[in-house]
Amino acid sequence: MRIALDGMGSDAFPEPEVLGAIQAVREFGWQIILTGNETQLHNALNRAAGPRLPENITVEHAPERVTSGEQPAFASRQKPQNSIARGFDLVKSGAADAFVTAGNTGAALTNGLLVLKRIAGIRRPALTVTLPVKNGRCIMLDIGANAECKPEYLFQFGIMGAVYAETVLGITNPRVGLLSNGEEAGKGNELTRAAHRLLATAKLNFIGNIEPKEIFGGGADVVVTDGFTGNVALKVTEAVAVLVGSMIKDAFMSSPLAKMGGLLARSAIQHARRDLDPNEVGGVPLLGLNGIAIKAHGRSNARAIRSALVAAAAAAQNNMIEKLQERIAAAGTPISQPAA
Amino acid sequence: MRIALDGMGSDAFPEPEVLGAIQAVREFGWQIILTGNETQLHNALNRAAGPRLPENITVEHAPERVTSGEQPAFASRQKPQNSIARGFDLVKSGAADAFVTAGNTGAALTNGLLVLKRIAGIRRPALTVTLPVKNGRCIMLDIGANAECKPEYLFQFGIMGAVYAETVLGITNPRVGLLSNGEEAGKGNELTRAAHRLLATAKLNFIGNIEPKEIFGGGADVVVTDGFTGNVALKVTEAVAVLVGSMIKDAFMSSPLAKMGGLLARSAIQHARRDLDPNEVGGVPLLGLNGIAIKAHGRSNARAIRSALVAAAAAAQNNMIEKLQERIAAAGTPISQPAA
Repeated sequence: MRIALDGMGSDAFPEPEVLGAIQAVREFGWQIILTGNETQLHNALNRAAGPRLPENITVEHAPERVTSGEQPAFASRQKPQNSIARGFDLVKSGAADAFVTAGNTGAALTNGLLVLKRIAGIRRPALTVTLPVKNGRCIMLDIGANAECKPEYLFQFGIMGAVYAETVLGITNPRVGLLSNGEEAGKGNELTRAAHRLLATAKLNFIGNIEPKEIFGGGADVVVTDGFTGNVALKVTEAVAVLVGSMIKDAFMSSPLAKMGGLLARSAIQHARRDLDPNEVGGVPLLGLNGIAIKAHGRSNARAIRSALVAAAAAAQNNMIEKLQERIAAAGTPISQPAA
Repeated sequence: MRIALDGMGSDAFPEPEVLGAIQAVREFGWQIILTGNETQLHNALNRAAGPRLPENITVEHAPERVTSGEQPAFASRQKPQNSIARGFDLVKSGAADAFVTAGNTGAALTNGLLVLKRIAGIRRPALTVTLPVKNGRCIMLDIGANAECKPEYLFQFGIMGAVYAETVLGITNPRVGLLSNGEEAGKGNELTRAAHRLLATAKLNFIGNIEPKEIFGGGADVVVTDGFTGNVALKVTEAVAVLVGSMIKDAFMSSPLAKMGGLLARSAIQHARRDLDPNEVGGVPLLGLNGIAIKAHGRSNARAIRSALVAAAAAAQNNMIEKLQERIAAAGTPISQPAA
C-alpha cells in the first residue's frame, strides 16, 4: 500500500501529517509519500523521528501551498506546483494507490478534477460527510461540491455513497435515503421528487425520503441531497451542537450545585461531545474522481490523519474505484423525466 | 381585543385552549371566542371555571375537526364547518381581530387562504418558526408552506419577516439575513443568488447571506429561506437537539459519579432544554394572509396557548396587517432577473 499524503494541508501543518504518517508506517507497514516543501518536511521528520527517517516515508517536493482561505479554482491555477496537485499526480502516475489531504477542500476538488478527471459516466463529483447519529454514524452527500443539482446527479450520489459505505465502511446493503421534508414520495421540491423517481429504479437498498429525525435516529447509512441543502444541514448540525454545548456549560455554571454536578460528570460529557463532532472522523472521500482521494479536516491532529490514511487504504484494498466504475456503468446515466 | 381561538386544535384539546383562554381573559380582559364542538367546549369550561362561565369567553359552534394526520387540502374541503375555518370566518367578518389555532398547520394555511385570501401583492404565504439562538431568538421563514420558491417570494418573505419582527417582537430595524452556504454574495444556489440581488434592493436592514453558525450565534433577527431548505434546517435543529439531549442523558448514566453530577445539575439542564425547544414559544404567524393568524404547536399546554394569544393581540394592536399591506405595496413585486 502506497499512500500519498499532503504534508502541508492541515491548519497545524506539517506536524499532524508527519506524526500521522509515522504512526501509520509503524502500525501497518505502508509506504507514505509526503508532498510539500521538502526542507520543512524533512525538518519535521527529523524532529519527530530523529535523523533516521523511517524507511517507508519519502518526500516529494512541491514548492507551493494553497491556503485554507484561498479561492480554490484561482489558487489551483496560480499554483500548479501545490502540494495537493502533486499528490494527485502521484495517484495518476500509479506511484500511489490513494491520496490524503487536510487542505483546502475546494482546491482538493479542483486539483482532483484537473489531474484525475471524473470516473467515466459520473456527472458530478460529491463531497461527503460522516454525521454522528444515534448509536453510530451515517454518511451524507453532497455537502457542498454542487450548490445546484440535477436529479441525475442525486441518483449517482446514491450509487457513489452506497459503494463507499460498502467498500470503506464495510456496511452490507447500505440503506440509502433521500433527504426531504416529509417521508411520502410526493413530499419534497421538484428536484427531490424527480430524484426519488430515479433512485427508486436504481439497484440500491433505497428506503425513500428520509427526514432529519430519522437520520439522526440512525435510520439510514447513506443520505443523498444536493450540495446546497447538504451544506446547510451539516452546518446546522455543527451550529446546534455548539449552541447546546454552550447552553449546557452555562447551565453547569448557573448554581453551585450544578457546578459540582458539572465537575462530576465532566469526563462523561466530554466523551459525548467527541461522539457528536463530525470532525472526529478522520477523513471522507471526494467521490467521483477517477482515483482515491480522502479529505481530512483542516483541524486534523495526528490521530485524525492516521484515520484518514486508514480510510484511504481501505478504499484502495477494496477496489473502490473499480466498483464505482462498474456500478456507474451498469446504472447508466438516466435523464430525469418530468412527473407523469 | 377580540381573539378567535380554535378550541379543538391541540393534541390535548380542548383543555389547553380552555385554560389558556381563561388565563388570558383574567389577565388581560380580552374577549375570546372559542370555535369547535359547543358541547365539548362548554363541558370543558364548566370543569375549568365552574358553572359561571367567564363573561368574556364565548363559544362558536363548529361541528367538524381536522385532525393532525389528515391531508390538509382534502380535509379542509371535506369538512367546511371545521373549527379552523370557523375561526377565520370570525376574522373575515370582523367579529374577531385575530385567530389562534394549535391545529393542523396545513389545514390552517389552506383554510386561511380560502377564507381570508392573501394580502394584495403577496405572491405566497409563509410559515414561520422562532429558533433558539445564543442569548435570544430569531425567526426563520419559510419553513414549509412553499417547497418550491421563486426569488421574488424570498424577497417578500424578507419584508414580511421584518414587519412581524418589528410589530410583534418589538425589534427595531431587524437584521434580515438570507440562509446560505457561504457569506459572500456569490455563494448559494441559483435561487439564493437571485434572491440576494432582490433583497439588496429592498428597504430592509439586509445583512446579506448568513450561515447557520452565525444564525445560532445570534447574528440575525430574521432568516429568509425557501420552504424546503427551511423545513430541513428546522428539523435538523430539532433532531440534533434531541440527539444531544439523549447523549447527555447517556453520559450522565455512564458512571456513578456522572449520575450524581446529573442529579445535582438536573434543574439547570432542564432549564437549558426548555430554552432550546423551538416549541416553547407560544405561537408563530402564518404570514401573507389578509388577517392575523397565529399557529401554536400541537403539543401546546395552557401556557403556550396563552403566549399565542399574546402574540395575536400584539399583532392586532400594532396593526401588523396594515403595515404588511403598506410595505408590500411600497416594495412592489419585483421580477427576478438572471445574473448580469
